[in-house]
Amino acid sequence: MMRAVVVHAPRDLRIEEITVADPGPGEVRVRLAAGGICGSDLHYYQDGGFGTVRIKEPMIVGHEAAGVVAAVGAGVTSVKVGDKIAINPSKPCGQCHFCRTGEHQHCSDMRFFGSAMRFPHMQGIFRDEMVIDAAQAIPVGQDTPLEEAAFAEPLSVALHAVTQAGSLIGKRVLVTGTGTIGCLVVLAAHHAGAGEITATDISDPALAIAKTVGADRTLNVMSDPQALAAYNADKGYFDVIFECSGNGRVLAGLPDIVKPRGVITLIGIGGESALPVSVLVVKEIALRGSFRFDSEFAWAADLLARRAVDVRPLLTGIFPLERAVEAFDLAGDRSRSMKVQLSFNP
Amino acid sequence: MMRAVVVHAPRDLRIEEITVADPGPGEVRVRLAAGGICGSDLHYYQDGGFGTVRIKEPMIVGHEAAGVVAAVGAGVTSVKVGDKIAINPSKPCGQCHFCRTGEHQHCSDMRFFGSAMRFPHMQGIFRDEMVIDAAQAIPVGQDTPLEEAAFAEPLSVALHAVTQAGSLIGKRVLVTGTGTIGCLVVLAAHHAGAGEITATDISDPALAIAKTVGADRTLNVMSDPQALAAYNADKGYFDVIFECSGNGRVLAGLPDIVKPRGVITLIGIGGESALPVSVLVVKEIALRGSFRFDSEFAWAADLLARRAVDVRPLLTGIFPLERAVEAFDLAGDRSRSMKVQLSFNP
Amino acid sequence: MMRAVVVHAPRDLRIEEITVADPGPGEVRVRLAAGGICGSDLHYYQDGGFGTVRIKEPMIVGHEAAGVVAAVGAGVTSVKVGDKIAINPSKPCGQCHFCRTGEHQHCSDMRFFGSAMRFPHMQGIFRDEMVIDAAQAIPVGQDTPLEEAAFAEPLSVALHAVTQAGSLIGKRVLVTGTGTIGCLVVLAAHHAGAGEITATDISDPALAIAKTVGADRTLNVMSDPQALAAYNADKGYFDVIFECSGNGRVLAGLPDIVKPRGVITLIGIGGESALPVSVLVVKEIALRGSFRFDSEFAWAADLLARRAVDVRPLLTGIFPLERAVEAFDLAGDRSRSMKVQLSFNP
Amino acid sequence: MMRAVVVHAPRDLRIEEITVADPGPGEVRVRLAAGGICGSDLHYYQDGGFGTVRIKEPMIVGHEAAGVVAAVGAGVTSVKVGDKIAINPSKPCGQCHFCRTGEHQHCSDMRFFGSAMRFPHMQGIFRDEMVIDAAQAIPVGQDTPLEEAAFAEPLSVALHAVTQAGSLIGKRVLVTGTGTIGCLVVLAAHHAGAGEITATDISDPALAIAKTVGADRTLNVMSDPQALAAYNADKGYFDVIFECSGNGRVLAGLPDIVKPRGVITLIGIGGESALPVSVLVVKEIALRGSFRFDSEFAWAADLLARRAVDVRPLLTGIFPLERAVEAFDLAGDRSRSMKVQLSFNP
Repeated sequence: MMRAVVVHAPRDLRIEEITVADPGPGEVRVRLAAGGICGSDLHYYQDGGFGTVRIKEPMIVGHEAAGVVAAVGAGVTSVKVGDKIAINPSKPCGQCHFCRTGEHQHCSDMRFFGSAMRFPHMQGIFRDEMVIDAAQAIPVGQDTPLEEAAFAEPLSVALHAVTQAGSLIGKRVLVTGTGTIGCLVVLAAHHAGAGEITATDISDPALAIAKTVGADRTLNVMSDPQALAAYNADKGYFDVIFECSGNGRVLAGLPDIVKPRGVITLIGIGGESALPVSVLVVKEIALRGSFRFDSEFAWAADLLARRAVDVRPLLTGIFPLERAVEAFDLAGDRSRSMKVQLSFNP
Repeated sequence: MMRAVVVHAPRDLRIEEITVADPGPGEVRVRLAAGGICGSDLHYYQDGGFGTVRIKEPMIVGHEAAGVVAAVGAGVTSVKVGDKIAINPSKPCGQCHFCRTGEHQHCSDMRFFGSAMRFPHMQGIFRDEMVIDAAQAIPVGQDTPLEEAAFAEPLSVALHAVTQAGSLIGKRVLVTGTGTIGCLVVLAAHHAGAGEITATDISDPALAIAKTVGADRTLNVMSDPQALAAYNADKGYFDVIFECSGNGRVLAGLPDIVKPRGVITLIGIGGESALPVSVLVVKEIALRGSFRFDSEFAWAADLLARRAVDVRPLLTGIFPLERAVEAFDLAGDRSRSMKVQLSFNP
Repeated sequence: MMRAVVVHAPRDLRIEEITVADPGPGEVRVRLAAGGICGSDLHYYQDGGFGTVRIKEPMIVGHEAAGVVAAVGAGVTSVKVGDKIAINPSKPCGQCHFCRTGEHQHCSDMRFFGSAMRFPHMQGIFRDEMVIDAAQAIPVGQDTPLEEAAFAEPLSVALHAVTQAGSLIGKRVLVTGTGTIGCLVVLAAHHAGAGEITATDISDPALAIAKTVGADRTLNVMSDPQALAAYNADKGYFDVIFECSGNGRVLAGLPDIVKPRGVITLIGIGGESALPVSVLVVKEIALRGSFRFDSEFAWAADLLARRAVDVRPLLTGIFPLERAVEAFDLAGDRSRSMKVQLSFNP
Repeated sequence: MMRAVVVHAPRDLRIEEITVADPGPGEVRVRLAAGGICGSDLHYYQDGGFGTVRIKEPMIVGHEAAGVVAAVGAGVTSVKVGDKIAINPSKPCGQCHFCRTGEHQHCSDMRFFGSAMRFPHMQGIFRDEMVIDAAQAIPVGQDTPLEEAAFAEPLSVALHAVTQAGSLIGKRVLVTGTGTIGCLVVLAAHHAGAGEITATDISDPALAIAKTVGADRTLNVMSDPQALAAYNADKGYFDVIFECSGNGRVLAGLPDIVKPRGVITLIGIGGESALPVSVLVVKEIALRGSFRFDSEFAWAADLLARRAVDVRPLLTGIFPLERAVEAFDLAGDRSRSMKVQLSFNP
């Protein structure tokens, strides 16, 4: 019996039986092991979506997961039965202008697992088994714990962000917001040779984890709202800032503390922010968005396979699939959790 | 008798007698010929300043000008008496961190003619004669009309902005706001090989000038507020946008019409702008400020000396020094003027 | 009766009858008008190939051409019968690693008209009619003379080279070798806002054409072998050099006359060059190859359609197809020709 | 009694008495502790110089060293007596074109300790005490062993090279030549997040040290001359190559094994290299020199102070000043040594 985690409406999350087909040519069937709950999964569960993206039919959630190849279709040579893999949830069309110029993350016809952007929705990954394209099954080596491999997707997001900011080696880096993505950006920036990493958040446990994965200095901007104020001396302190809080007011304060010609990379998707245009101009600041990932997925899988980066401090809980509601509720409580995962096929 | 244009208070602009010293070692005395009225000069005249920068003592205004070398001090070899020159109004300290790393426009101790940022204020250029460092006297060749040479400073600002945006060759460019700087950005972008240039403004005469200096398409966003709306199709149309209006609401609409991974360069110094952060993120847009100029001044002087660019369509009036009030009033009326100049030493 | 220009062996160029099929789905049949003879065409004619690329079966030569759409296959919407087009001779596979990352010029399975790199050879363009993919038929507007449109391919090569070198605006540029590609690089660099362009060659007529399309200064390095020697003062004079001669000895002298941190772009495909490594190191020079083109083809077609650049000075002769041998012999004599074209379907 | 290591002629290295002045305004007197013997020191000792740089008067050698501040002149605030410092041997003029544009390593009037490029020569660092500008005394913290701090200069060279190559995070890196600089490049590339580092040399002990500081794979190209041959498959394997051997024949083979659009950074200063120009063109390879360092010195000092990188595996011997000849002979024997240091003031 195959099961899946299906959102029907806000706060209506059900475990349901599904059937899984045999893999066709170029496809593989994956037996899932670990799946991480992401912010967008929480939005579907708590609010039925975000912005204009809304659940219009029952949808299996989840897009961060790892498992084992259970069957391969005709012509598949990249993986074989028994291989441990991470699932790349994104499948760009390969035909549009953006795909042809190597910017697949901007594909005009993207198919992304567990997303209600399209209708019918793209069903997600939180289930015992599923059939995917072989190209989306990325080997992670047989020695890698699958709960670590399930970090490949969010780690890709962090690596993409770090890549957008140019070389970090020796730079003074600030990361605002140390949720899962913020902590992974800290980890990636540390891996990229950042000279010094400062991290801010409003949660001490989150900041403690940020320290474990590479932050040299952590500041709780709830308990000390002026913690960043002194960094505006001499026209600003930081070379590169990664805004991961998605909070427009946090962003509005960053131009004052970045150096002239410094870079502010935006990863957190907030609404609006009232930016001080004259500061951006006078200090020639570069503000740059970073969205999803592209070739970084294979790279993330390789880093995890070699444990060249260690994501284990981020994993604060694993729940069996049947306790999905409990897992989602914990994942929604930042004071008690960082990354919460579901386990499948016990 | 030497005269100067001195601002004492809002709307209190006087023609006053001054004395001019002999040039010391490394200095030259310049006999001014033409001086352009800039937006900041207008702010001092109309409002006594802008933001926190306020007139606290009488100040000679003006920082765009050209003239002829009247005397040279000991050791000066770069120019000789009789040479036509443009005056570079900026004098970075050469010692601070920013100067040492080649970013002189961010000098911590900048001296800029006709600016109330420091106190005592840096006295300006609108006068019959003045003594400057020889390094600030940039030869423009003897065949260049000095009213054209007086465009060297604002042209430098435009060249610096164009340089910040990377190569424009073949790109689809939008310039919002076709005041003097906007028109010079159009001219510079055309010179830089832009594939297609669109310009917007609320003044038809200003747009007509933009067309003369290189715009392929002009849009009056006052008479047709939806003129730019159609450019948001297929995730956006423009590769590079130069925001020269200084209007926060104009800026807020630009992320929708720039392409994914496109660049928005900010030159207009507005107050705040409520930017749609999620669009910046999802389209991975780069927003980048551009401030003043550095090595671009010599380059601007050379372009003007060779008339490799033609700034004459921008010059809408020349008034003798004694009619400075009339000239400032005209310069403040965008419906009737683009660049208004004063002439000295008739 | 359809005719084609076929190379069988060195100096064995024949006009032969061919048949042309109807266009299949997604294809168009083109009635050729003008075709330019390129250096590689000459190598096939004079030597039977170059390096390891050799004629192993009769091959229709030619890859620079323009014509009119004569018939369209099912599903073609980008062009219609009667449209004037330039033919993009390159067809990357779209599937390999290089295509997926937007670097189509490095495609592992490239199909390029008139090339003996593959076997069977890719037949070329010098014929009365041919069937091509609709995607390779690039409209040039109905007002564009087709002999100008036939420059789209070599102009693309020049635009790609200019793009590789970064922004040229205001820079001191040197172009060594003013054959067709060198002259088009001069023209493209001028279009890109180069501050000053110097060109060298051993042929005065070629240099005269370079001057017509944008060179500010030309130097005949045959009549004055020391013409470039003085440019090594103060560690070097040029910001950017485009090496278009393909002569290793020319290249070996360039590090001495480029500025510290300057760029030498290689377009000419020579054999070996004994480069002074210590000069490259001590001056931190960047040497960078430029190969073929990618998205620059559509851009070149657009520039030609608007006559934003004027290639007419380069066209030194047009011969009807039946006089192909005469045309090839003239094209092979640099002292008498720049670009020689064939005309089809009189 | 103060002593110094003075080269008079090839193989004529003497320990001589010197006097040391009091520090003037802005200067400090340093009591040296550790000094590393570099390749150029060896050239002066073995051959009396290199290329056109020749010993024309007795010269104290040495430019890599660390010590303790013994006295400070008037106005010095950056360091105080007792501070541990690394000595930055380079003093750019601050006035020339290159200094003004932030490219101090290309200073037209550079003063570099222990160099015969100028005459009179710039005396070097291998002595008990010396007076230097305070700006050249870079604090390393009081907990840093001074033999590690003496690596600041060669580490700066490696950091500068790594910076020239752009972001290394996730890239496949090759380092050819694992002398001191090659090993430090391995260490710096590892610190910069390189995905995989391969190192080659002809000495197994040197390769063993490279492995200790970050190489994932080492290849002895003496015992297996074909070790790199297989890396030319699929147009090449490496994203970035650092050429540290200074061997022209090694360089000539690199274009075949770097990827299309890959980067070859040259650090080793060889004579000439017969480069395959057509491969550079067809693969659009970037070759780029890297020379000395600039702001990287302070960064290197900081990394050593925090032991963020560990240079200790490179240190193969420390000799007291009076055994300098023995130390130089050992340093000249690559089979037995990597970095050999002198110690002062026992």
